[in-house]
Amino acid sequence: MPTTLVVGGGLIGTAVAWRLAQRGQHVTVVAGDPGQAASGVAAGMLAPLTESAFTETALLALNLDSLRRWETFAEELERVSGLPSGLHRTPTLSVAGGTDDAARLRDLGRWLDDRGHPCRWLTSRELRGAEPLLGPSVRGGLLVERDWSCDNRRLWTALRVAAERLGVRTVTGTVLAVEHEDGRATGVRTEDGQLLAADEVVIASGAWAGGHGLPFELPVRPVKGQVLRLSAGRLPRLAHTVRAFTQGSEVYLVPRSDGEVVVGATVEEQGFDARVTAGGVYELLRDARQVVPVTAEYELSECRVGWRPATPDNAPVLGPTPLAGLTVGVGMYRNGVLLTPLVADVLAGWVDDAHLEPVATPFTLERFAS
Amino acid sequence: MPTTLVVGGGLIGTAVAWRLAQRGQHVTVVAGDPGQAASGVAAGMLAPLTESAFTETALLALNLDSLRRWETFAEELERVSGLPSGLHRTPTLSVAGGTDDAARLRDLGRWLDDRGHPCRWLTSRELRGAEPLLGPSVRGGLLVERDWSCDNRRLWTALRVAAERLGVRTVTGTVLAVEHEDGRATGVRTEDGQLLAADEVVIASGAWAGGHGLPFELPVRPVKGQVLRLSAGRLPRLAHTVRAFTQGSEVYLVPRSDGEVVVGATVEEQGFDARVTAGGVYELLRDARQVVPVTAEYELSECRVGWRPATPDNAPVLGPTPLAGLTVGVGMYRNGVLLTPLVADVLAGWVDDAHLEPVATPFTLERFAS
Repeated sequence: MPTTLVVGGGLIGTAVAWRLAQRGQHVTVVAGDPGQAASGVAAGMLAPLTESAFTETALLALNLDSLRRWETFAEELERVSGLPSGLHRTPTLSVAGGTDDAARLRDLGRWLDDRGHPCRWLTSRELRGAEPLLGPSVRGGLLVERDWSCDNRRLWTALRVAAERLGVRTVTGTVLAVEHEDGRATGVRTEDGQLLAADEVVIASGAWAGGHGLPFELPVRPVKGQVLRLSAGRLPRLAHTVRAFTQGSEVYLVPRSDGEVVVGATVEEQGFDARVTAGGVYELLRDARQVVPVTAEYELSECRVGWRPATPDNAPVLGPTPLAGLTVGVGMYRNGVLLTPLVADVLAGWVDDAHLEPVATPFTLERFAS
Repeated sequence: MPTTLVVGGGLIGTAVAWRLAQRGQHVTVVAGDPGQAASGVAAGMLAPLTESAFTETALLALNLDSLRRWETFAEELERVSGLPSGLHRTPTLSVAGGTDDAARLRDLGRWLDDRGHPCRWLTSRELRGAEPLLGPSVRGGLLVERDWSCDNRRLWTALRVAAERLGVRTVTGTVLAVEHEDGRATGVRTEDGQLLAADEVVIASGAWAGGHGLPFELPVRPVKGQVLRLSAGRLPRLAHTVRAFTQGSEVYLVPRSDGEVVVGATVEEQGFDARVTAGGVYELLRDARQVVPVTAEYELSECRVGWRPATPDNAPVLGPTPLAGLTVGVGMYRNGVLLTPLVADVLAGWVDDAHLEPVATPFTLERFAS
């Protein structure tokens, strides 16, 4: 039975481990501190269309492909884990705070229409009919029925349980180096001196992927994000994910089924700076309150920092590396939750079967070689 | 040896217990959850003059009297506890955000001058000379050399140690009722059924003072305050306590010796509502950032809720009650830290010696009798 080590115990690492175990592999996950992982901080938008304001065509195709896998992925996961997957079929409103923002969103709507992704433009009156909690400053926006969300903490728990049930083992540690011999990965060495051997190694350690002493460059850097969680309690609740643009700055509010609302996120090139800052929290609360005024009455239940794994072109790095037996699945940037089903399938197919799904071929490490 | 029960383990209760033990009494403190007490949440301003915008003449005299006791109180406490008292001899700047606010502060300055409390008016340029971290919106303000501050958490620790060293015993519990017989208090009964007997009972339970099943009305209610703590880290630090008024709303920033800055506080008639709200935190961060812009870069290290013990006239209730053997020291509202030395002296004198200091006579419960 082939053995695989997965470096990283977040959503991607756990999902890959689960998929490999389903294929009969003997899998060990080397997990860092779960309190640090972006998997526990993310807002969990499954929103390739409203996110496409930021993405290229090939990446949009990748994101849409993963969204198409989401329902069956969630159903399977719920069946085998016996737990909720966290999938929440709430539509998204992408709204504009100013007239410039409205013009840009209308352009985005037309661009999506032209590519076969219809979305509906709502006037400010129609918007407030659909979502009465929106504030008076909102000028109009797009309704996107299929941009959903997922409670990433529930998803993570369900994935861990599903993986454990198939015998996936987890060890805690920080991977200092990938061991290799004659151009082939042979295992990993952890900070506390453990040597773990395996036939295959998968790097799924998110923002930390650049720190494993690899014999080639893996261009992943942490992009700090501050994220808040509010609790509605008995106050009125949002029925949509709301993404708002005001003078170029963006805020999103992602409601959970229990009345929690995730408000995100700052985007800061600060390395692994772990500080929740007064200014970061201020800006998120200010924007949230402007778009959905009732949030000012909500409880502020959590302020957290996470680090998005970013690459030079903000797209993932998937599949083979210059070392035989070493596979990567990193750089999901703002779309880690969305991409979890696809990346798990792609990496498991590559590791177990040497087959790389065509949708992933534009995203191999090779593109950075030149 | 007379025995006294002190209901409340906050600053006031602990200081009274210490003073009574110094007089040879056998003292037991019945303390609630320390995580709930205002003593751990307060900003610790010792600022009777800049606070006097809110107070009557008799209360100003009381506050000033307590300030005069502060230095010797702190010296004695440090000597006997071996710990820092938290006293911080940083002057206060009371600054104005708008022209209306400036006019009101100038009036306050004249009013204080007339009463023999000189304070200096600084132009906006002079203010920034004194405190370079002030933002451009500040119009001018008062420099008050003797309005200091105290790190209330350090103070509380030192008081507990000092009291313990003199044999003060602490039991944890919620006091449901004061037991009494023939018009005299005989002890207390706690929620878990304990009956504690004593010769004297002192109520020093802050915002909870109205909940002990007393046979008379003690008009104390909780006034919710949200308070933030920021950490400067390596960023520039404030050299003054800054109190700022902008369009009638107030924010204060109280620096600690370790780079922490306490930012307070909302004033909310919400009973014992424990929620840190998005709107409360937003307003504090907004005002702090306007007055001292660099705070936006500070770490937001804590968001807490406390409950000020308030009375109908916002002044304390000190001394005797309709029950013989039952003394109260509650209702310090915004000035609990400032009033700790005075209230401890006054209550110990009354309980141990039946002597009520004249400064306290306007503040007995009797004033609410009519």
